Amino acid sequence: MIVRPRPHWFPMLFVVRGSVLPHIAPQLIFTTAIAILVTAWHGVVYEWKVTLTFVPFSLIGLTLAIFLGFRNNTSYARYWEARVLWGTLMIEARNLSRQAMTLVDDTRQAPPFVRLLIAFTHALRHQLRGTDPKADFARLLTPAECERLSSAQFKPAMLLLMASEWMAARRREGTLSQTMALAMEAPLCKIGEALAGCERIANTPIPFTYAVIIHRTIYLYCLLLPFALVDSIGPMTPIIVAFISYTFFALEALGAEIEDPFGREPNDLALDALSINVEATLRETMGERDLPSPPAPVGYVQT
Amino acid sequence: MIVRPRPHWFPMLFVVRGSVLPHIAPQLIFTTAIAILVTAWHGVVYEWKVTLTFVPFSLIGLTLAIFLGFRNNTSYARYWEARVLWGTLMIEARNLSRQAMTLVDDTRQAPPFVRLLIAFTHALRHQLRGTDPKADFARLLTPAECERLSSAQFKPAMLLLMASEWMAARRREGTLSQTMALAMEAPLCKIGEALAGCERIANTPIPFTYAVIIHRTIYLYCLLLPFALVDSIGPMTPIIVAFISYTFFALEALGAEIEDPFGREPNDLALDALSINVEATLRETMGERDLPSPPAPVGYVQT
Amino acid sequence: MIVRPRPHWFPMLFVVRGSVLPHIAPQLIFTTAIAILVTAWHGVVYEWKVTLTFVPFSLIGLTLAIFLGFRNNTSYARYWEARVLWGTLMIEARNLSRQAMTLVDDTRQAPPFVRLLIAFTHALRHQLRGTDPKADFARLLTPAECERLSSAQFKPAMLLLMASEWMAARRREGTLSQTMALAMEAPLCKIGEALAGCERIANTPIPFTYAVIIHRTIYLYCLLLPFALVDSIGPMTPIIVAFISYTFFALEALGAEIEDPFGREPNDLALDALSINVEATLRETMGERDLPSPPAPVGYVQT
Amino acid sequence: MIVRPRPHWFPMLFVVRGSVLPHIAPQLIFTTAIAILVTAWHGVVYEWKVTLTFVPFSLIGLTLAIFLGFRNNTSYARYWEARVLWGTLMIEARNLSRQAMTLVDDTRQAPPFVRLLIAFTHALRHQLRGTDPKADFARLLTPAECERLSSAQFKPAMLLLMASEWMAARRREGTLSQTMALAMEAPLCKIGEALAGCERIANTPIPFTYAVIIHRTIYLYCLLLPFALVDSIGPMTPIIVAFISYTFFALEALGAEIEDPFGREPNDLALDALSINVEATLRETMGERDLPSPPAPVGYVQT
Amino acid sequence: MIVRPRPHWFPMLFVVRGSVLPHIAPQLIFTTAIAILVTAWHGVVYEWKVTLTFVPFSLIGLTLAIFLGFRNNTSYARYWEARVLWGTLMIEARNLSRQAMTLVDDTRQAPPFVRLLIAFTHALRHQLRGTDPKADFARLLTPAECERLSSAQFKPAMLLLMASEWMAARRREGTLSQTMALAMEAPLCKIGEALAGCERIANTPIPFTYAVIIHRTIYLYCLLLPFALVDSIGPMTPIIVAFISYTFFALEALGAEIEDPFGREPNDLALDALSINVEATLRETMGERDLPSPPAPVGYVQT
Repeated sequence: MIVRPRPHWFPMLFVVRGSVLPHIAPQLIFTTAIAILVTAWHGVVYEWKVTLTFVPFSLIGLTLAIFLGFRNNTSYARYWEARVLWGTLMIEARNLSRQAMTLVDDTRQAPPFVRLLIAFTHALRHQLRGTDPKADFARLLTPAECERLSSAQFKPAMLLLMASEWMAARRREGTLSQTMALAMEAPLCKIGEALAGCERIANTPIPFTYAVIIHRTIYLYCLLLPFALVDSIGPMTPIIVAFISYTFFALEALGAEIEDPFGREPNDLALDALSINVEATLRETMGERDLPSPPAPVGYVQT
Repeated sequence: MIVRPRPHWFPMLFVVRGSVLPHIAPQLIFTTAIAILVTAWHGVVYEWKVTLTFVPFSLIGLTLAIFLGFRNNTSYARYWEARVLWGTLMIEARNLSRQAMTLVDDTRQAPPFVRLLIAFTHALRHQLRGTDPKADFARLLTPAECERLSSAQFKPAMLLLMASEWMAARRREGTLSQTMALAMEAPLCKIGEALAGCERIANTPIPFTYAVIIHRTIYLYCLLLPFALVDSIGPMTPIIVAFISYTFFALEALGAEIEDPFGREPNDLALDALSINVEATLRETMGERDLPSPPAPVGYVQT
Repeated sequence: MIVRPRPHWFPMLFVVRGSVLPHIAPQLIFTTAIAILVTAWHGVVYEWKVTLTFVPFSLIGLTLAIFLGFRNNTSYARYWEARVLWGTLMIEARNLSRQAMTLVDDTRQAPPFVRLLIAFTHALRHQLRGTDPKADFARLLTPAECERLSSAQFKPAMLLLMASEWMAARRREGTLSQTMALAMEAPLCKIGEALAGCERIANTPIPFTYAVIIHRTIYLYCLLLPFALVDSIGPMTPIIVAFISYTFFALEALGAEIEDPFGREPNDLALDALSINVEATLRETMGERDLPSPPAPVGYVQT
Repeated sequence: MIVRPRPHWFPMLFVVRGSVLPHIAPQLIFTTAIAILVTAWHGVVYEWKVTLTFVPFSLIGLTLAIFLGFRNNTSYARYWEARVLWGTLMIEARNLSRQAMTLVDDTRQAPPFVRLLIAFTHALRHQLRGTDPKADFARLLTPAECERLSSAQFKPAMLLLMASEWMAARRREGTLSQTMALAMEAPLCKIGEALAGCERIANTPIPFTYAVIIHRTIYLYCLLLPFALVDSIGPMTPIIVAFISYTFFALEALGAEIEDPFGREPNDLALDALSINVEATLRETMGERDLPSPPAPVGYVQT
Repeated sequence: MIVRPRPHWFPMLFVVRGSVLPHIAPQLIFTTAIAILVTAWHGVVYEWKVTLTFVPFSLIGLTLAIFLGFRNNTSYARYWEARVLWGTLMIEARNLSRQAMTLVDDTRQAPPFVRLLIAFTHALRHQLRGTDPKADFARLLTPAECERLSSAQFKPAMLLLMASEWMAARRREGTLSQTMALAMEAPLCKIGEALAGCERIANTPIPFTYAVIIHRTIYLYCLLLPFALVDSIGPMTPIIVAFISYTFFALEALGAEIEDPFGREPNDLALDALSINVEATLRETMGERDLPSPPAPVGYVQT
């Protein structure tokens, strides 16, 4: 996630960090080069004048607008839903910790439970990013718990099972009443829903065929465009083609970046910061004072 | 579902798998052939010059954009809702298994219940795809249960009833308290909602009349288009007509494919993989180690 | 609801059933006739040449697109929400029946309750379509119940009250515990929500003024259009006007049809089939074998 | 709310009631008059020919479409959400009455509670419309209750508190069990949510700045438009300007009307009829026979 | 939030308060000045005639419409969700107070709890706006509570924990039954959700890259536009460029303003008024008569 105050309108025209320009430079140079050639040759290819007007392009605009608008909205919806799910995780973990501290008669037993929730948050992040959760488990859980997790395939789900077992143990020893256990089931189920939601977004991309159709249409459009413009605007053709290509490629690149919001690209969600925030707020609930704080952004980017 | 890493921008222009091109080739060839004929005859049909300009096409664009945008958004909404429902199924089955393992006093009784949930998942898949669930039932359930299911018309609903009966039996024998049974009712009802949601999507297509209007408008548009272009862009007419037809037909074909997301076409949901995933996570909850894993994609396609 | 397999792309151009063409034929003939006259007179009315170009029409397109897109999306949203509500009804009736069979200690008492739910489904359908529910009540309920319902103004709400009274009776006689009664309250409330949702859609149309504005704009547009086209496309004018009018009128007619999804027009919801399906699944829950099945579609149309 | 059967397509062109025309007549006459003057002077103002083409107008169309589409969708979303909230109120009041009649052991005590709910409905309507609820309170509640309400600032919230107190009294005297009281808390909280939702819509308009920008853009557009049209379509200019202005002004006026759906304009919600409907269904739940019915529409308008 | 009655259509054209014009004046003057220069030089820059037509601008319109529409809708969705969350806070605080007054046997103990909820509301506002909550805490809470909060990092979450502790204390002393405590958990969890929702909106802006792309595209568009217009509309060019720039800049500025709805700009949410309203309604629930009222708007603006 890029965190920076919005610059004034003039410097904002020239920001480099946060711009998608570096990613799309090759394509942009390619299409602009074609446009320069077409302009230099006045639209003639092998002695054959390619006659094109703007009409086909405004007609193609119809389907292209549908494709690009769809792609953009869908990608952002995925991004935002992912953020909402992590917000759900944050609050339900807080609710559960609060309940563990107040609904269970023996407050001293809450910390191991809260640590399971903290471990769950880190485990989910590691699963979504394909990284190794071992270090985080080691500093939060008992060796026996680490052992049990190491052989589990669905680690976050296993942690929810262990949290549930903690509740069952409390219920059996009588420090958690049946009714209060019922109250704790609701947030526990909601955390499970957040987990399944994240897995769903991570595992189910926008149908690949969309990406193919959009990609082809954009490139064909940008390659044919100079032939349509050269007769009416002459030497301005490459500039305009570069401008139009920039908006198309930027839209496509940004969509591809936030479509999978759990990665480590600049506009992806700051899962590192989010999970440390969850850890901090849960630790404070337990009465701890020395809270961890999220890493400072590097070049305005928080991961 | 097509699972493949996004190729680099250049090779992506030429991918065949995941492209919808093979499905729409006949129509595309047909309209392009018409365009070639029109271009060859300079828009004259039986000595009568068909006078057309781009104007009618940009006016028709208005309703066409509404139709196509609607079709596309609605189809994708159905696809995504279906995916969400299977995510719900996944998590509530996990929640119920977790509860069966921790809320019931006698853990040894949980496996038959969890196997009912696994059978439910497979039964739903089979119902949605119109295939026979017998083999899956046989490997998961007791003969008596299989017998009872074989005569049932609404098999997944019957499995939920059987799960409910298991809970009633536990309650009667005293290993599941009333309050904890209440906690288990919530996810059970939610699984029922996921079931009804899938049935709704499978049984209620987008009103057929939409498909008819969209289909006719697109084809009339593509057949008349060459007459409008031939005078201004001459020999480029067939290329442009092919390009525009491609985007229209592709949009329509893709919409028709994902509108019914439970099928076996490449962009449909990977129900096989999803249900095996549910089975694996539920088995792990029961403490099993040897988990089934989803079949490898064939040519990037997971079913 | 029109249920038919999607025809191949070529025959689909000529389907009659499921087409909205018969409904809009008069208007279509009217505007086409005007267009023919305008073409014959070369846009001269009483010796006064009406000068029009395509420009005003592309400008009007802006608001027209907003109106038509809004109308279309809103109508479909109503249609789909109505379908979702009937899906809710289906599943919560199933949930309640399942609970009546497993949460109440004396299973033999469940059938009268389940029959109340079946009667509720039919009563809702009759209320939404303004038909008489007497015959359905007579075959499902006791004479006393029928008597009580016959004088009720809000019949489905009365049936929910009677279902609630059944639960109260079970609670008082001790076969349904307080906690299990609590579990049954949730689906009962949700059925009430489905009822209120259906009433809301049935009683609150899209504001009438929208229909008026859209209607006027479309007709004025189609009547003026030939004057704008005749100078540039000459004899093709009537064909294009007919084509454009077709898309406008079809969009308006289809919107008006599915806006009120509880009617009996071809694209409306198949409430008959839906309520018989609910009846079948509830009867199966009670252990019955001889289940009713929905009537076969007549000319692809299910009501 | 305008309730009338949809007229046939031809008479619908000339309906007056339900048309927004009377509200926008002044602006429409104003812009048309300007267009007539511009046409008469051939676009010359003080000997200076104003040169304009359609191009700027099609470019402005881009932002205008965003503004108007946004305004229209947002206004309707508010209208529809308000209707949904009143539907929630209807059903949860019904649920609570049903519960009061069946969950409380002494049925004779239900009527004062149900009357509190009826009073709540009327109180909410009066608050939203800024009218005096005294008369409705007087016919429904005891003098002591009226007294208490007369000094309250948040009257509907106070009525919910009183309903809650009734439940507490029943609980204390033992006719309502703790568990059944829990069941009644859910609909009571939902009624509270409907109340807060209505207050939110009533108190938070669409940001005023939107209205200003849209208003200015539309008027500038309509005033400049004749200069752009006069050279190409000559004497048709005023007719087209009137047509285009009509669609713009109508869209703006309708948006402003339904944006605040609780008023008394023709397209606003029929709160009078809705609250009498709630009263009727609650009275029927209590076993009353002589139910009030909503006032007949005056000139197709229900308030 | 700007609260003012909608002026008549004519004065509305000239309102200054509520207009975004002052914020965008510099850019507007800049682009208009460029347009004047271009017009004066007839589009010639350093003896080189820049040939441009409207075509590129209508093609760029495609992506620009997607970007601007997306930006506008997303910003408003954030604004409205924030308002909904504060509505949730309002109602759940009311629900909790109502429950504290009726579900707990000893009513005299409710005030400290209700004051915690009032303090929560103010604490959330202060956190969202980055202001100091000390003064509000001091007038509402005990010194011990203030002390505990002063060292807390997540103050609103700490207040929910303290509210939960109050409930635990009541439960232990026997004035709040287990079942009624369960009823109070639901609104408490929902307040937690509102808190997390507000934090999510406050901490996660729309991806910065969107702002960059939109900003650049708009400015390039407005700077190149005069070259495209000067040949056809001559001296009207600066007026039209100013008009078009106005709509673009206004759309961008308004989006940026409401994107972060918790600030103190004129169109932001009136958190001051909202939190005082919550305080007033909660105080009335406790039986207080002398209720605080929100500050009067200053120049139609409520903060």
